[in-house]
Amino acid sequence: MTATRQGAPLYRDPAAPVDARVRDLLSRMTLREKAGQLNQRMYGWDAYRRTPDGRFELTDALYAETERFAGLGALYGLLRADAWSGVDHATGSGAGDGAELAHLVQRHVVERSRLGIPALFVEEVPHGHMALDGTVLPVNLAVGATWDPGLYERAAAHAAAELRARGGHVALVSALDIARDPRWGRTEECFGEDPYLAARLTEALVRGMQGAPAEYFPADKAPVVLKHFAGQGATVGGRNSAESELGLRELHEIHLPAARAGVRAGAAAVMAAYNEVDGLPCSGNRALLHELLRERWGFQGLVMADGLAVDRLARITGDKVSAGALALNSGVDLSLWDEGFTHLEAAVERGLVSEAALDEAVARVLRLKFRLGLFEQPYRASPLPSPAVGRDLSTAVARAAVTLLRNDHGVLPISPATVSRIAVLGPHADTVAHQLGDYTAPQRPGTGTSVLDGLRKLAPAGVDIRHARGCALTGGDLSGIPEAIDRAAACDVAVLVLGGSSARSAGTGFDANGAARTVVSEMTCGEGVDLAGLRLGDAQYALLDAVVATGTPTVVVLVQGRPHVVPDTAAALLTAWYPGPWGGEAIAEVLLGLAEPAGRLPVSVPRSAAQLPVYYNHKDTEYGGYVDDSAEPLHSFGHGLSYTSFAYGPPRLSGHAVEADVTNTGRRHGRSVAQLYLRRLRTPVWPRTLELHGFRAVDLAPGETRTVTFPLGADFAAAVPPGTVVEFRVAASARAALTAVPTQSFTAPEETPL
Amino acid sequence: MTATRQGAPLYRDPAAPVDARVRDLLSRMTLREKAGQLNQRMYGWDAYRRTPDGRFELTDALYAETERFAGLGALYGLLRADAWSGVDHATGSGAGDGAELAHLVQRHVVERSRLGIPALFVEEVPHGHMALDGTVLPVNLAVGATWDPGLYERAAAHAAAELRARGGHVALVSALDIARDPRWGRTEECFGEDPYLAARLTEALVRGMQGAPAEYFPADKAPVVLKHFAGQGATVGGRNSAESELGLRELHEIHLPAARAGVRAGAAAVMAAYNEVDGLPCSGNRALLHELLRERWGFQGLVMADGLAVDRLARITGDKVSAGALALNSGVDLSLWDEGFTHLEAAVERGLVSEAALDEAVARVLRLKFRLGLFEQPYRASPLPSPAVGRDLSTAVARAAVTLLRNDHGVLPISPATVSRIAVLGPHADTVAHQLGDYTAPQRPGTGTSVLDGLRKLAPAGVDIRHARGCALTGGDLSGIPEAIDRAAACDVAVLVLGGSSARSAGTGFDANGAARTVVSEMTCGEGVDLAGLRLGDAQYALLDAVVATGTPTVVVLVQGRPHVVPDTAAALLTAWYPGPWGGEAIAEVLLGLAEPAGRLPVSVPRSAAQLPVYYNHKDTEYGGYVDDSAEPLHSFGHGLSYTSFAYGPPRLSGHAVEADVTNTGRRHGRSVAQLYLRRLRTPVWPRTLELHGFRAVDLAPGETRTVTFPLGADFAAAVPPGTVVEFRVAASARAALTAVPTQSFTAPEETPL
Repeated sequence: MTATRQGAPLYRDPAAPVDARVRDLLSRMTLREKAGQLNQRMYGWDAYRRTPDGRFELTDALYAETERFAGLGALYGLLRADAWSGVDHATGSGAGDGAELAHLVQRHVVERSRLGIPALFVEEVPHGHMALDGTVLPVNLAVGATWDPGLYERAAAHAAAELRARGGHVALVSALDIARDPRWGRTEECFGEDPYLAARLTEALVRGMQGAPAEYFPADKAPVVLKHFAGQGATVGGRNSAESELGLRELHEIHLPAARAGVRAGAAAVMAAYNEVDGLPCSGNRALLHELLRERWGFQGLVMADGLAVDRLARITGDKVSAGALALNSGVDLSLWDEGFTHLEAAVERGLVSEAALDEAVARVLRLKFRLGLFEQPYRASPLPSPAVGRDLSTAVARAAVTLLRNDHGVLPISPATVSRIAVLGPHADTVAHQLGDYTAPQRPGTGTSVLDGLRKLAPAGVDIRHARGCALTGGDLSGIPEAIDRAAACDVAVLVLGGSSARSAGTGFDANGAARTVVSEMTCGEGVDLAGLRLGDAQYALLDAVVATGTPTVVVLVQGRPHVVPDTAAALLTAWYPGPWGGEAIAEVLLGLAEPAGRLPVSVPRSAAQLPVYYNHKDTEYGGYVDDSAEPLHSFGHGLSYTSFAYGPPRLSGHAVEADVTNTGRRHGRSVAQLYLRRLRTPVWPRTLELHGFRAVDLAPGETRTVTFPLGADFAAAVPPGTVVEFRVAASARAALTAVPTQSFTAPEETPL
Repeated sequence: MTATRQGAPLYRDPAAPVDARVRDLLSRMTLREKAGQLNQRMYGWDAYRRTPDGRFELTDALYAETERFAGLGALYGLLRADAWSGVDHATGSGAGDGAELAHLVQRHVVERSRLGIPALFVEEVPHGHMALDGTVLPVNLAVGATWDPGLYERAAAHAAAELRARGGHVALVSALDIARDPRWGRTEECFGEDPYLAARLTEALVRGMQGAPAEYFPADKAPVVLKHFAGQGATVGGRNSAESELGLRELHEIHLPAARAGVRAGAAAVMAAYNEVDGLPCSGNRALLHELLRERWGFQGLVMADGLAVDRLARITGDKVSAGALALNSGVDLSLWDEGFTHLEAAVERGLVSEAALDEAVARVLRLKFRLGLFEQPYRASPLPSPAVGRDLSTAVARAAVTLLRNDHGVLPISPATVSRIAVLGPHADTVAHQLGDYTAPQRPGTGTSVLDGLRKLAPAGVDIRHARGCALTGGDLSGIPEAIDRAAACDVAVLVLGGSSARSAGTGFDANGAARTVVSEMTCGEGVDLAGLRLGDAQYALLDAVVATGTPTVVVLVQGRPHVVPDTAAALLTAWYPGPWGGEAIAEVLLGLAEPAGRLPVSVPRSAAQLPVYYNHKDTEYGGYVDDSAEPLHSFGHGLSYTSFAYGPPRLSGHAVEADVTNTGRRHGRSVAQLYLRRLRTPVWPRTLELHGFRAVDLAPGETRTVTFPLGADFAAAVPPGTVVEFRVAASARAALTAVPTQSFTAPEETPL
């Protein structure tokens, strides 16, 4: 214990180094107080209620929790609004003013804590802060489709500023899961199937939310918990939190690069994943959490467990006390809802955990609180950023994510010269709720733009827009199809908006494992909602067939959280993933040619569930295909058409860079996303067919040629060990790269890396 | 170089120890002669032709090969008869007398070899010797369904005796591949999905073919090459020879136990698999072939590469010379068809391979030749065992493999009291060729028994048997269905025989990778024939629906090399896998109640390809299922009905054994296969739901109770590390075990293993 010259304890001195403050505070804490810092027990939404006259009132549950631990380590979801939390627009009972609520709770916590230690308010911010009036961004899969880390960085910065303005501190964000099996309901939370693309977007996320690395976070920046660490995208059968049978090499090559990039970018925390990898559960895996993450990677931040993941370890330890000990000894600092971590005091007393190990975990929690400035200003909230800016950023991401997969005879963009009547059809044509994805705050009535809204708003005057829903998202009710056929037959073009939904209805809850289990009628995606067959509702297929059969040129727009199996029978096909509240407007812009279809596939689109897996970067075994199907996807990773056409020149190795010329060979301005792929020729390990190693968007006027340059930096040297021989290919998709002209092969020097 | 007292070289002395003979011979060999011993270059069927007057004549190709290597290491497929080899009954051009042919070729080899070193004749014996008139056994998947290692040991002994009688020496047998994804066309070559069952059958194989371990093989015993080592059943998507992303723990727990058991039983050789495991190709994986197999397991035998697998390594080494060096340095002794191993002399001269490493490989080849007694009696062939015995053994395995999956209202066995007319329908009802599986010699016309033949032969006098094919195995031609409907409607019961086929037609050949690629019209299974959708031909489903719709009680019999997706709509369902030539008789016996349906599923039967994987021994993650389907199989591993019923009492731990009482609660004699499963409760590694750890068939009269005993021996101690807590369950299937009463839990002692 050290005091400042003024007599205040050292940990109270903002001029002292953070580590010194942490050590000083730790030295003053009891074992019980320490254990309390590692627990994040209750649902934040249970910490308060509204009185009939509209004031906030703290609950006995919160009092009991702070009493139990002589303070409060962290509180999950204080500001969360959705069906689970019981806080949403429909009930109107929720937090109207997050900052006020946060202030109230924090004051209670600080006052109940002998040493005045504030709580961390941990919130879901997977694609915007999941709070009342939080700006909803498109889901990560749509972010992946933008191939635009700069845009995402700005959107992430906005989300962090909103979080802090509402009084929240720490942002939980899915970023590390790699989408290897689209059956998985959390595919929508992934940046895609590729480790390089995911790594660049994870860096952008950390930069955007946290800002430049610094000891203290600015008031509008938020520490990020990158989740999930590790291998959760590789669970067998796309089954949520099931086992992952991966080997270490596959884990390192595919599932760890995003985490590595996030840690390099300074991420404040990671969340240990539910799943096991080759037998070892992530929350109980010291090799992963300590030896790799902390010792090899030098990670200084916090490791948080996923909800009830520590208690799950009792399956192998025999009881929850030893489960808590295993998790802590493996490297978990902060638990979520577990009983296991409530016994840490006993675990220390019984010798299952050393006090030194406990202290290290507590120090990491405290360090984050100091870095957030909570000891100086526990009740500060920054100003709320402009909702209009948020909406513009959300729409910009949605716009950049719209991906054109097929466009026969240039049916798109819809031209007022030939089209005077547009039929807007399908279960997704006029709904905002199903555009949002999972982990999304409900929207106030009237918020957002459906595709129908967007076309009505943006279509040239005189264009007649006719709408029919046709069918529901799920089920086989065909009764609405005749109306849709009539509309299509009467129009010059049909825009048929199909897809899935991750919208949870009221009444869905957590089961004993913390996973959502109650599946509502139209929910086909999201956490705990894995889809074996990758099929839309039956009626959607009937609607597609019927509309195409009218002979009216049909444009299918897919709004979805994963690739679905959809026959490629329409004249044009776009996917917008879950584009967020204003996605309908972004889609309309692309349909009408007011915006470029700039998106590129961040995942391969399978022909069927039977041919899984279909990721492009499989090993190069020259597999010839199934006897009843190809082993290749329907649409390739990286694919996405423009309204113009491009030609790629042969790549050149120029110093420490690869260059290639891209020419707009069409008659319209356009953007191509040039993709650099490696192909290993001589290597100690069996190589993948291709590996993405760079991408650059290039805007070109008709006839214009530009040179795109991909510098080969430290990441290249790290990826390509000395002696390895590689080829470079530059193309507009993985499939195009397979047949693209390679550069001369390049041998990584044996001695000095680039 | 050492000479005997008589002046003959030591290696010629049959009284000298084999190792001394090997060392002496090695010391006399040139580098070129050594390299020659490691090459197995040509197809054996190209080594000879028949003259117009019926004599055998050696080819220039064989002369060139023996000249090139101053001898011949080994020759693959000299006696092989099938469409690929061009030797079959249809052409009549093949080897009528294998022993004569083997003698002729061996004499040439010995005479061309300066030191008189004979060649190894390596033959395919996956389920019977793949030679003219070789007795075809049911495929391994059917062997797995018998759960009867004793029966398989006798069948394997017969196959080895046939091989040796025809002049062959070494038997290539699939045994190590574990069926984890039924899309894989080689699923039929697996003993099933379970490592314990596969290990027991692999031991039986080695014991049966090789006899008790001894320095010299008896004249009717054959050294076995166990293939494939390792992890080939785990390639992604069930894709043949594609990558396996497995971790080491999964590899050791699931994919290596059969190999471990085979090595313990004394297997003379293993074949390195095509696939890579987590980046390292098996043929270039020293950790696998040397450190694990030789150093940890103490394997003294030969490692052979799969066809052209060494040359494939050039994909990572850059050229075939270095590919050969990598394979040899990794532990491969004998190549198959590769160019890479033809450059070993150059590889030694260039320092890529040490002569010591080369000598070790050569010593292993020579040791096998000495152990076979080839230096003493190069031309000896043992007497051909009785074809009738072979037929009986084949039929016995087929009979024991017939598995009854469903039997509503006791429609089976077919009773002459109520049935006077049987309709025998379906594309598999009257064909022997499609009962055989892949890697099968063609049968002489008239050999074998179809289901129709079997029923005609065995049905009581006066029962009217009516037949219609209904449709082909593949395709959608429905024109035969009305006739089948007529037959069904006119009969008291319909036996509908559906399934797939691995019958290759003439004209199929090897592609550049040595894999079969040309797929003939009705082939839906076998090597290189992977099936994404697990579907039978479309017309078979229409036939099933039509026959069931007649209202005539319908018994579906599946003849197949993998589980297919078949709606469970008929009154009864059996699978016979590929039961071999006389399988139709075995099936008829079971249908008529002349034999018990004794088979039990060695693989889980999926509901659809979309829900893969479905093996029972997945990790215990309590996964709740897909939103559109269960994650559980349609039929459980271990399942198989009897014509009576059984009750299982609670298990008891008794000394070093688990016991349980089984009672026949029905009114008919019957056989239950009691299965012992472990369920780990406390363990350092995330446990599987269940693990098979014993099985015993028990025959019971009506009302009879017997105690089955499962000793817990060294294998249990090895499987359950000290401190682990396990439960035992004894039940009639994996699914039944899930809800079976457990024993008191058992804690493996910390100190002294059992």
